[in-house]
Amino acid sequence: MSRFSFQISATDGAARRGEIAMQRGTIQTPAFMPVGTAATVKAMRPGEVAATGADILLGNTYHLMLRPGADRMERLGGLHKFMNWDKPILTDSGGYQVMSLGELRKMSEEGVEFKSHLDGSRHMITPEGSMEIQRKLGTDIVMAFDECTPYPATHEVAEKSMELSMRWAKRSRDGFDSGEEHAARAALFGIQQGSMYEDLRQRSTDALLEIGFDGYAVGGLAVGEGHEKMCATLDFAAPMLPHDKPRYLMGVGKPDDLIEAVRRGIDMFDCVLPSRSGRTGQAFTRDGPLNIRNARFAEDEAPLDAECSCPTCAEFSRAYVHHLVRSGEILGAMLMTGHNLHFYQDWMRAMREAIEEGRFDAHADAALERYRARKIATS
Amino acid sequence: MSRFSFQISATDGAARRGEIAMQRGTIQTPAFMPVGTAATVKAMRPGEVAATGADILLGNTYHLMLRPGADRMERLGGLHKFMNWDKPILTDSGGYQVMSLGELRKMSEEGVEFKSHLDGSRHMITPEGSMEIQRKLGTDIVMAFDECTPYPATHEVAEKSMELSMRWAKRSRDGFDSGEEHAARAALFGIQQGSMYEDLRQRSTDALLEIGFDGYAVGGLAVGEGHEKMCATLDFAAPMLPHDKPRYLMGVGKPDDLIEAVRRGIDMFDCVLPSRSGRTGQAFTRDGPLNIRNARFAEDEAPLDAECSCPTCAEFSRAYVHHLVRSGEILGAMLMTGHNLHFYQDWMRAMREAIEEGRFDAHADAALERYRARKIATS
Repeated sequence: MSRFSFQISATDGAARRGEIAMQRGTIQTPAFMPVGTAATVKAMRPGEVAATGADILLGNTYHLMLRPGADRMERLGGLHKFMNWDKPILTDSGGYQVMSLGELRKMSEEGVEFKSHLDGSRHMITPEGSMEIQRKLGTDIVMAFDECTPYPATHEVAEKSMELSMRWAKRSRDGFDSGEEHAARAALFGIQQGSMYEDLRQRSTDALLEIGFDGYAVGGLAVGEGHEKMCATLDFAAPMLPHDKPRYLMGVGKPDDLIEAVRRGIDMFDCVLPSRSGRTGQAFTRDGPLNIRNARFAEDEAPLDAECSCPTCAEFSRAYVHHLVRSGEILGAMLMTGHNLHFYQDWMRAMREAIEEGRFDAHADAALERYRARKIATS
Repeated sequence: MSRFSFQISATDGAARRGEIAMQRGTIQTPAFMPVGTAATVKAMRPGEVAATGADILLGNTYHLMLRPGADRMERLGGLHKFMNWDKPILTDSGGYQVMSLGELRKMSEEGVEFKSHLDGSRHMITPEGSMEIQRKLGTDIVMAFDECTPYPATHEVAEKSMELSMRWAKRSRDGFDSGEEHAARAALFGIQQGSMYEDLRQRSTDALLEIGFDGYAVGGLAVGEGHEKMCATLDFAAPMLPHDKPRYLMGVGKPDDLIEAVRRGIDMFDCVLPSRSGRTGQAFTRDGPLNIRNARFAEDEAPLDAECSCPTCAEFSRAYVHHLVRSGEILGAMLMTGHNLHFYQDWMRAMREAIEEGRFDAHADAALERYRARKIATS
């Protein structure tokens, strides 16, 4: 097996249908990666996650370095064996989570010093350190360590932040390459920054291309700028990235975000939304999201989504899931998460088929119109 | 299919190997019934519960009458359809839970008035009302409404309580029989009371036999009296009950309780222990219980129990389950509950085989010795 290859089999406008081949498996793109923060996609067995159609998971370096810890993970044979997931895993660099610690962290050229949210212990994370942790985890796709520029940011602030991230990107590349055995079977992605500024996104892209990566992420979006501004930024930020490498939009998103980003040439996504909102009672359906806690579902014998083929929809009614979620039952979180992750994979599968068949825009417009009509949510 | 039949295929000492045949399925005895309080065995899909080997579930009338409510359950086609469990369900009468409400309830000859623990709303539960609720749920084995005598109780208190329960047993019988369609396919069990007093247990048995039931439960044990006293009471309480009907020890118990009760002629059990303690980190093993939260499991690559064939033990290490439970992950509750329920079913299966093969005492003594040595728990 090749270490890493990306083949585009069809395009439709800017949308791309592709396949990433790695030693642990093949990833059909556009792809949605469920988030398994702490070595588990919450409320799901790994076999159930795979059964939704997920080809790859995302793990969070920040959480895993604190618990169970990178050295322990290495001693136990890596994250895949630990959590019993044998397909590819992508890990973030820890940068995003560390930034969100606010006063608990201190930035420098060297990296970020922070206090653990678990026990207050002090830690330092650097580009080299992040590469080492991701190597110890045994990650298949390693993300460069960067600063996720806060939003909103002035051009000056965004420029400085981007430039730091590009220096860290080079150090990430060098750190990754020094882990020779791991580098021979894993891939490294760089992350474009530059906030909402086209000139900065271009300079960031140039810097990343100068270093060279297996794939390129669009960072610094989905940070509160809203759907319209995200789309407007992708309009220029996505096509800058090389055509022949996967493009990954980090932390996105809602079902309509995914469609508009694929339309603009994005290949990969991750987001906690389907799993997190599942636990709190939001079910995604082709007719928009519904809040299963709503009293009008108490005797509704229909499945969450009549067109869904997931185990939740095959076996259980809205009335039952309503009861479970209102009662705080763990099975409610299990059934809702399973449905939402399945819905997201179906959503991506439908886009992949539409690209293959040269009808992406028609599919996208129809799916969006139906989704946004929110017949269920307002009936 | 017959409405209800109980066939004993082998005995070994007082221990009995039997089969209860009902319209929704056959129950191999001695049987352990997992508890599905609120229309769910917590953290388990119904298919997973069935895969542990459970032939029957227990539901709690008190919880179900409050949420989702008996009338709603009836409109939705009953509890089986609602929770997607097509094998038999036994429901308790609500008496035990109502008693444990303490100051929130008021007893009378008529029944028990109480305030809901959910919203403080007032309710009344009577023998006739309990039968009606259990009919609306569509229960297969209905339990008579009784008072679980508090422990300890003087002879005088225990006598009065038992006599009230016997009057309620007659009213339960009449109430059950008046639900003709349901009574034609369901079974009704009476409950022996009398605290730790042999004369009262005998008088209670006589009263129940005078009324006539499909099976007989031993009530009022596992209320704080301890293993020794429970066994001593069973020594006289179990053999009083008719040989040709199932005997059900309510709310029991620990693995060693189950062995000693089967040795004394008990056929059925229910207990929240395997599911509840699973959620808090206690795993049952053939070498005694272990607390998976203990730091010594952090890098233990062995399964919870090396002889267990459950999905948790097949797929995951103690180190992983330790991590999940310490991190408060839902998957930790799922894996631990699944293992514990599987362990309990294995434990019963081994007893059934030992009775069939005429080696129950040898099996029981060896299993108890190994279980109580607690090699794991103290190593």
